[in-house]
Amino acid sequence: MRLLGLSEAQMVDRARRVSDAETVPDLVSVFARGAWTTVAEPGDGAAGGVVAALGPAVALRAITERWSAERVRARCESRNIAEVAEAVAAAWSSGATRWRSRLDGANVAAAFDLASRTGVRLVVPGGARWPERVVDLGVHAPVALWMRSRVDEQDAAFGRSIALVGARAATGYGEHVTLDAASGLVDRGFTIISGAAYGIDGMAHRAALAGRGRTIAFLAGGLDRPYPSGHASLIDRIATTGAVYSEVPCGAAPTKWRFLQRNRLIAASSAATVVLEAGRRSGSLNTAGHAASLGRPLGAVPGPVTSAASAGCHRLLREYDATCVTTAAEMAELVEPVSASEAESAGGSASTGDAARSVLAVLNRRSATTVGQIADRTGLTSSEVQSTLGLLDLEGAVVETASGWSRP
Amino acid sequence: MRLLGLSEAQMVDRARRVSDAETVPDLVSVFARGAWTTVAEPGDGAAGGVVAALGPAVALRAITERWSAERVRARCESRNIAEVAEAVAAAWSSGATRWRSRLDGANVAAAFDLASRTGVRLVVPGGARWPERVVDLGVHAPVALWMRSRVDEQDAAFGRSIALVGARAATGYGEHVTLDAASGLVDRGFTIISGAAYGIDGMAHRAALAGRGRTIAFLAGGLDRPYPSGHASLIDRIATTGAVYSEVPCGAAPTKWRFLQRNRLIAASSAATVVLEAGRRSGSLNTAGHAASLGRPLGAVPGPVTSAASAGCHRLLREYDATCVTTAAEMAELVEPVSASEAESAGGSASTGDAARSVLAVLNRRSATTVGQIADRTGLTSSEVQSTLGLLDLEGAVVETASGWSRP
Repeated sequence: MRLLGLSEAQMVDRARRVSDAETVPDLVSVFARGAWTTVAEPGDGAAGGVVAALGPAVALRAITERWSAERVRARCESRNIAEVAEAVAAAWSSGATRWRSRLDGANVAAAFDLASRTGVRLVVPGGARWPERVVDLGVHAPVALWMRSRVDEQDAAFGRSIALVGARAATGYGEHVTLDAASGLVDRGFTIISGAAYGIDGMAHRAALAGRGRTIAFLAGGLDRPYPSGHASLIDRIATTGAVYSEVPCGAAPTKWRFLQRNRLIAASSAATVVLEAGRRSGSLNTAGHAASLGRPLGAVPGPVTSAASAGCHRLLREYDATCVTTAAEMAELVEPVSASEAESAGGSASTGDAARSVLAVLNRRSATTVGQIADRTGLTSSEVQSTLGLLDLEGAVVETASGWSRP
Repeated sequence: MRLLGLSEAQMVDRARRVSDAETVPDLVSVFARGAWTTVAEPGDGAAGGVVAALGPAVALRAITERWSAERVRARCESRNIAEVAEAVAAAWSSGATRWRSRLDGANVAAAFDLASRTGVRLVVPGGARWPERVVDLGVHAPVALWMRSRVDEQDAAFGRSIALVGARAATGYGEHVTLDAASGLVDRGFTIISGAAYGIDGMAHRAALAGRGRTIAFLAGGLDRPYPSGHASLIDRIATTGAVYSEVPCGAAPTKWRFLQRNRLIAASSAATVVLEAGRRSGSLNTAGHAASLGRPLGAVPGPVTSAASAGCHRLLREYDATCVTTAAEMAELVEPVSASEAESAGGSASTGDAARSVLAVLNRRSATTVGQIADRTGLTSSEVQSTLGLLDLEGAVVETASGWSRP
């Protein structure tokens, strides 16, 4: 098949320079997905639906051949996906005109040429370096991702990963907290995912690199011109040991819309999202909103209530049921909950200690024990028993009845 | 009836000097409840159960007459409360010996005499200045409360009340936050309830007094010797316009146990509890635990995660499902939730403003609208529309579909 005036061989040649795909059909598909990134804006669910239903190459040909909605519907029916035919035809009707106005063979060729000249690769769903979790975005998942990395393989990069995000206008407090968080998480083997912006994002990447950890950035613009330009060398360092991704092709400028859609990829590709410092209107709250709507664990680091720079984090705690996280260990728990016995051995419980264990050892479920009896049996003073019971009571580990204390 | 070697007239005379009760039976009951406060430790559920079942005077006589558990059971049956007879008899068996060892007519007389000399009154369930909410403590509710106040009537004192508590080891940050909270809450007509301790408690009372608001303290020891002594004049000022309460009689020393039980009264008597600053082992977490176990709204003020003085508040947010509160308005909302329309008119919503209202006005539930269409119809730029949609999306006020935006 010919597309955009290119022969199959020409498409395959272009795709081969930016992709590890090996067969001709796979390479044509890679080429078509790359072309789609020049046509549809990030997060265009109509494009996602049409590409999923028709396949990327046929969907592209449908644009150039000006297919009618009726023909799209018939195609779905012939592919045995009649149940979505109506929705896909509607998506086609809503998008075909805007895609056609943007589809330009020279643009597509330029995007591929620029990518191969600047070491940018194209990764597609199912490929080795594809962030599997974006499947949860449904039709809003990216059609393909452009990627820059000097590392050959990175199989588990997204597996144990946490997005650390926050405001550009970071305070010293926010940067300190981010440094601790990223260092502690890479020590635990987590990949740090962020947006390479000034402030919190940049600090998260830098601390991960300093800790010799793996870090991945998602950019809102083309990878040939890193944004912000002041972070060009940081972004280069991220690509050296990790990877930098973008949903838009080389040459594409970052826009407000693309930032918002980039945020959805940060949230969708990571196992959990933590907002470290954010004012009431920080864009990182948008990332948090994506994480929440995907049902992903969402953490927020509190700060002084007197600091407007933390107001967004407090809002997430109040209104979005974010988990309060104060240390890297607590952030790791968002992804890998700690069992009670581990928490105890790590000293995580306030009442952990010999006194609490002794007191619990003499209590039972069937009958109540008085403070005096507990003191006698544990060798603790009454006042030690009482303060230990107070803490255990707070934890729900003991209950007080009319005649003394017992276990619940 | 004679009790503790006193005639009814002698009991009535003593009770009249510390109580507004008028009838002889009521005054005998007041006397007996006062005597019980010298016999049972605060929170003694066995005592609470026996007093509730037999009545305070008969329960007191049962101690002096060394009733058997069998007789207690029979008495319950004769009073038509057979269903609790077994539990009350068991409570009696567990407590009678310790109550008898503490019951001393001279002690009781001294407690009443000391109270009447120092202006301390005795309030009992059903009385005007009784904190009604303590009924939720069940058998652990106090039998009576000693009270000091220079104000004649204070009907609604506990009605709209919030407990503000925290650590003695307060930082400048914690004190600042407490000052703002107490001032803002008394401005809204709330009574501030706390424990008169150093640090956060003291600041809460002081700020309430400075704002000419009503404030109430619960002490762990007898009201004749205010504890801590360094707060004697503060406690005096609290009694001048508000009230100071204690569950133990004049002459009784504060103990660790009594502090913990005093905490339950702070939590139980107020409509909500807020912990303003607390380290991991602060006693105020015990107050918070009581509030949570009573099902009362619990708020915690976050602080810097780098401050050990806020670690207890963060623990409440993480582990006890406390609500993150950052302003007096948010604390008031714990008790009186604000309706969405009020929040909007108060500017409480992040996306409140002309842009959000304009965007929402052109969206509907039935069909999707594109960013371009929204921009055309609202006169906003595309980028303004996109950022407004981002915030509204975060709030769940809009949803994105394959073909644009609509209302959920």
